[in-house]
Amino acid sequence: MASRFTVTYFIRAGDAEEAKGRALDIALEQTVEIPRNAVPKGYVEDEILGRLEALDKDPAGRSGYLANISYSDDDMGEDFLQFLNIVFGNSSIKPGLKVEDISPSPGVLALCKGPRHGIAGLRARAGIGDTPLLMSAIKPVGLSTAQLARLAHDFALGGMHFVKDDHGLVDQKTSPFEERLRACVEAVGEANAKSGGQTSFVPNITGPTTSLVERARQAQEAGAGAVMIAPALAGYDAIRALTQDSDFSLPIISHPAFSGANVVSPDCGFSHRSFFGTLHRLMGADAVIYPNFGGRFGFTRQECLSIARSCADELGGPKAIAPAPGGGMTFARIPEMRAAYGKDVIYLLGGALLQESDLVDACRRLVAAVRS
Amino acid sequence: MASRFTVTYFIRAGDAEEAKGRALDIALEQTVEIPRNAVPKGYVEDEILGRLEALDKDPAGRSGYLANISYSDDDMGEDFLQFLNIVFGNSSIKPGLKVEDISPSPGVLALCKGPRHGIAGLRARAGIGDTPLLMSAIKPVGLSTAQLARLAHDFALGGMHFVKDDHGLVDQKTSPFEERLRACVEAVGEANAKSGGQTSFVPNITGPTTSLVERARQAQEAGAGAVMIAPALAGYDAIRALTQDSDFSLPIISHPAFSGANVVSPDCGFSHRSFFGTLHRLMGADAVIYPNFGGRFGFTRQECLSIARSCADELGGPKAIAPAPGGGMTFARIPEMRAAYGKDVIYLLGGALLQESDLVDACRRLVAAVRS
Repeated sequence: MASRFTVTYFIRAGDAEEAKGRALDIALEQTVEIPRNAVPKGYVEDEILGRLEALDKDPAGRSGYLANISYSDDDMGEDFLQFLNIVFGNSSIKPGLKVEDISPSPGVLALCKGPRHGIAGLRARAGIGDTPLLMSAIKPVGLSTAQLARLAHDFALGGMHFVKDDHGLVDQKTSPFEERLRACVEAVGEANAKSGGQTSFVPNITGPTTSLVERARQAQEAGAGAVMIAPALAGYDAIRALTQDSDFSLPIISHPAFSGANVVSPDCGFSHRSFFGTLHRLMGADAVIYPNFGGRFGFTRQECLSIARSCADELGGPKAIAPAPGGGMTFARIPEMRAAYGKDVIYLLGGALLQESDLVDACRRLVAAVRS
Repeated sequence: MASRFTVTYFIRAGDAEEAKGRALDIALEQTVEIPRNAVPKGYVEDEILGRLEALDKDPAGRSGYLANISYSDDDMGEDFLQFLNIVFGNSSIKPGLKVEDISPSPGVLALCKGPRHGIAGLRARAGIGDTPLLMSAIKPVGLSTAQLARLAHDFALGGMHFVKDDHGLVDQKTSPFEERLRACVEAVGEANAKSGGQTSFVPNITGPTTSLVERARQAQEAGAGAVMIAPALAGYDAIRALTQDSDFSLPIISHPAFSGANVVSPDCGFSHRSFFGTLHRLMGADAVIYPNFGGRFGFTRQECLSIARSCADELGGPKAIAPAPGGGMTFARIPEMRAAYGKDVIYLLGGALLQESDLVDACRRLVAAVRS
């Protein structure tokens, strides 16, 4: 028998009987997808069919139950997308179901070797010790490459550790991908030469299916310090595939664009921690961007801290990664964020810095505020 | 100035002022992603910034408004994922927002040439006239290749037009991808030789990022009649990329696995018609599988019919595609489905047929029931 991984689902249900019925339906739906009486005896029933391991009233007090269902590594076929398909493929379409937690098996951990760098690797790249990291974004779309490179230079000179493309920057005619990549790497390099810093430029390589790997390698060759991918757009195997590419070794930063529906509804999708934490570590992201509480998105403090914890808790192998809360961050909120996140975090500030008249000075004040 | 495409959002809001504020936020968030006072004058403000074109109380009576926001083709950069990112990248993370409709621009239509075959091409491949198509699925995972090929043979002999892999079949050791592909194409070919039919085998090519194009070409070379991809897993550019691949020409069938959160919540994601209809036609899918009403999923009759209409309405270029409702379909429901969908549909039946003792006979009865 193969080892089994376990998924904990929240099931909206009025009583235990209804919850058990729904849980057994999930076990069928996610594996054999045929009526129970048509499941072949032997290997299919004994090994492949999902197994309800536990069912308990929701301890968080929602109107429903938590079901632990285990699945065979054999069903996964050493395919990360099939792993996700087993976790929540068809059941994602049923309202009143949510993936709360995922406990990987030895087979999942053999497939998902996790990030190559993790938060420790990002700090080493930035040349800092056990302190918070800082990241900002060049934007908006529509600026010329020279204008964007100038912003990258100033962010770097001001002491940001990572300067990334805005996730909307791709290969627009105002700033084609390769031109921007080369100009920004050079601009950040100039700033590093002046400051003695180790700022990395992080291009967004989310793009056409046929270009992703090519852009990743271009980024590495050009001297980028990491790359950014939005997996909900580019596909949920893209990051893992790059971590297994022997011609590529940069850190990978995940962007949440287009993934919102997977987390914002209380009635479907994933818990914040399982989506932005567990899944991203299994994918192999080194840092995960998500909307901070109190910004212009609706995540609560508790949800955000559950993500941060899930970026670092024991997962049986994958390194701890960096939570990168962003979205409407301001100077005034630094103390509140320090209190909430501690030191294992990337502060992502974009718009707030771009509103300042002297960008380099604003970055320096930010660096000082975070260190103090 | 470039042409502009328009997205209609449902915005939950108590009054017009709140709705206008949220709409203007979307216009910023989806394009420049910086505070309004930091938007550079000139090209960025005049061209790239989203434009609120109309705002009206929701005619469907929900507690909110419909906002039409237009975006420049320049922002898209001839990149389908950036198109999706503009449509709903960051805003997907804000509750109380939903994409209702998408009106493509000339630039979008130049990028998205749509399906190569459409429903007319699928019918031609099946050798039928203006009547419904029938599709079934070999399953479950865990059966051997010989057992799955036997099912494919029997489905074909019984007169199903398309026989697809279950979406959980990938490259498991019990039935590796290439072995299953070859065996099922051969089995379907044998059945066609006996029956004089033109049944196509449809392998599931959803899989590792680095294998997708290779499996698509393998499928074509081996004699498959179409391929199936789950874009929410494989990435939303995968189907479009294959429609532009000069070494690949088969029809592509889309599977909804892992996409559920994008449609099931009334408070986030996409309307059923825009997701399963408009987006799939723009991607280039020839058929789109989705859960039928009255089955084991929660879609309503009205939602399903809105998808079917959106598969065929005027979109400025892309061919009409085949809606393929499935999920818990039974013989008893054929009359109801005929009344609802008419002739422009693929009936997808799997489990109901596999419960029958004589599979070939069950398929023949189904074919007769659909034709009568």
